[in-house]
Amino acid sequence: MSERSELRSELRSELGVRAAELDASDELAKLRAQFVLDDVVYLDGNSLGALPASVPGRVDDVVRRQWGEMRIRSWEESGWWTAPERIGDRIAPLVGAAPGQIVVGDSTSVNVFKALVGAVRLAALTSDGRDEIIVDATTFPTDGYIAASAARLTGCELRPLDPAEVPSALGPRTAAVLLNHVDYRTGRLHDLPALTSAIHDAGALAVWDLCHSAGALPVDLDAHGVDLAVGCTYKYLNGGPGSPAYLYVRADLQPRFDSPLPGWNSHADPFGMSPAYEPAPGALRGRVGTPDILSMLALEAALEVWEGVSIDSVRTKSLALTDFFLECVEAYVPRGRVVSLTPSHHAERGSQVALRCADAGEVMKRLIERGVVGDFRHPDVLRFGFTPLYVGFGDAERAARVLGETVT
Amino acid sequence: MSERSELRSELRSELGVRAAELDASDELAKLRAQFVLDDVVYLDGNSLGALPASVPGRVDDVVRRQWGEMRIRSWEESGWWTAPERIGDRIAPLVGAAPGQIVVGDSTSVNVFKALVGAVRLAALTSDGRDEIIVDATTFPTDGYIAASAARLTGCELRPLDPAEVPSALGPRTAAVLLNHVDYRTGRLHDLPALTSAIHDAGALAVWDLCHSAGALPVDLDAHGVDLAVGCTYKYLNGGPGSPAYLYVRADLQPRFDSPLPGWNSHADPFGMSPAYEPAPGALRGRVGTPDILSMLALEAALEVWEGVSIDSVRTKSLALTDFFLECVEAYVPRGRVVSLTPSHHAERGSQVALRCADAGEVMKRLIERGVVGDFRHPDVLRFGFTPLYVGFGDAERAARVLGETVT
Repeated sequence: MSERSELRSELRSELGVRAAELDASDELAKLRAQFVLDDVVYLDGNSLGALPASVPGRVDDVVRRQWGEMRIRSWEESGWWTAPERIGDRIAPLVGAAPGQIVVGDSTSVNVFKALVGAVRLAALTSDGRDEIIVDATTFPTDGYIAASAARLTGCELRPLDPAEVPSALGPRTAAVLLNHVDYRTGRLHDLPALTSAIHDAGALAVWDLCHSAGALPVDLDAHGVDLAVGCTYKYLNGGPGSPAYLYVRADLQPRFDSPLPGWNSHADPFGMSPAYEPAPGALRGRVGTPDILSMLALEAALEVWEGVSIDSVRTKSLALTDFFLECVEAYVPRGRVVSLTPSHHAERGSQVALRCADAGEVMKRLIERGVVGDFRHPDVLRFGFTPLYVGFGDAERAARVLGETVT
Repeated sequence: MSERSELRSELRSELGVRAAELDASDELAKLRAQFVLDDVVYLDGNSLGALPASVPGRVDDVVRRQWGEMRIRSWEESGWWTAPERIGDRIAPLVGAAPGQIVVGDSTSVNVFKALVGAVRLAALTSDGRDEIIVDATTFPTDGYIAASAARLTGCELRPLDPAEVPSALGPRTAAVLLNHVDYRTGRLHDLPALTSAIHDAGALAVWDLCHSAGALPVDLDAHGVDLAVGCTYKYLNGGPGSPAYLYVRADLQPRFDSPLPGWNSHADPFGMSPAYEPAPGALRGRVGTPDILSMLALEAALEVWEGVSIDSVRTKSLALTDFFLECVEAYVPRGRVVSLTPSHHAERGSQVALRCADAGEVMKRLIERGVVGDFRHPDVLRFGFTPLYVGFGDAERAARVLGETVT
């Protein structure tokens, strides 16, 4: 055995032992049993969360009994009608929101539209001449596309900026700022408290997209006075493919929240069938049309996993996992072969690691063939999401080891 | 036995025999076996269609295998990504549309918004000064609320009118007209070909809401040159509670269709993740965000029922059913106790019967207790929907008979 391969073998054994120790002392490790997982290392929960074991039975009951047997009665008797606000309240503690401020329904894109147009209208109520929407230029593209549409329809100008430039760009023309809490590509966590505070100091409204943070780290919407927020539920919340997104409108803003999509579900008396629109009080004002019950109730079952789980402990494990993964990558992958795009400072890191790699597309294919599932983001990024509820330290070590073998 | 009750008994026996004969010669009767139904007479399929027997197994497979085992791979390998347009093409023949013009996704309300804003923008491309949206004043309220929002955001004026007044109200200011094909309350079928033609003669665009017609009668969108249309899938298409709605944009309008909700799913290259928006060609341009896969694939399974079923035969049975029900109501219900709001002319009738009844709320409760499920619409309407795929003539006779016993 050459000195090099001997060293590597020692390292491997050492990191393997460390992983086992970390897993043994992980208080969240037991949650893995609540998910349907096989031998694959699943690091794509930041794209589609794994299936919680409670979901199939629940969905089957919704289909066969609630729909098949009770039919129309289920809108009332099975709680279908109130699901959007009930499930919103289940998400609320995960993002630091008191009850009554979140409704579930529609896609993230549709909720970004409601939130941004709503924010511009709220801004117009308090001061004139606010005709500018600032959007995170590095954002997940849909936010930028929808922000452009919201700007066009409200007569605003859209300014795409790097989040770091936002504080100095804010001014008397700024109506609203749409930011991603965690960058979908690099995994960078933005400073929500400081940015929200700067936005408020300029008299504008802060709209946060929580797709890549909710369920992975504390958000504390209420504590930081966030105005409006949206997020999807199929990533760290494990709601299933295309499960409905949610909208948060801070309680004190709700009476003035003026939705651009005032569907009948947001009416104060939806079954009054009045031709005159009168918005419901509270979070319900963010509803639009008939909610997609199958997807919504699958999400409700998925959220049961969170019973008794603190988001702080999830955050602690998430950082330990990404730290350990980065350490293993450094040990196993030849220097320079990949470059981490993910900030090393904890305060700037979400729950994913993004590695730049020239042949990332090809490398990810080979990783998947070998049972390590992350994803590829054009043109050269390997993305590995760490869902603390079901990913362990052994998974992190194995993923890095297979990556090292794949790129060597 | 009094003469009166003897007469009633004879009548009952005669109508019962007629019902049995009609059921025996009904070529669609065999389809009932493809639905999960019990002894209840279910006349609320115009609110929530019954469960097709193929759905529970399919949904279970989507949840356990496609999500649970294949996870992220299913977006490609299980055809999740292309579901909105694939299922749109499955709905297309039911509404007389060639393939490539319908996408499934979002709620009806959201699709009304896309269609109306899109229509106003299309109108502006061909002539100036079109700043008026006409909407069916008797419409299902959400269409009116959303139309008001579309008008406000596009700088248009909204004119709610009775559909009969529309032709004379059309003018050089009319940009778009939103009409319901069948009135949700009375069951009145509006003259789609004539109204569309009048709207076109005025240089405006016709947007039709097919919620209460698709799956119950021929719509022939292409043949009549309809510009845009929307519809839900949980009524006569039996897609399940809150199953996604659809948007039709006529093929020749697609290159100029300019959606107010340009989410990343409508991008020409969605995974290119470009900050610049470039709309996809064709019907895909009507997509927005990530589609709700569970609800969407339940709908796909539900649509299999239509294999080999012609919408003309469905219409023939629908009219025969509502005729027979009205005949039975006349025979069984004391004169004047209920008044039909549903047009007697076939050309003006959808697939439901609406009866005005002073104590409709109370009467419907008692009907439901006795196994006849229709619904109540404020303030005084009993609504009975006839889904030809699973409602028979015996059901119609029984429903009228129980109604007669209930109100006497």
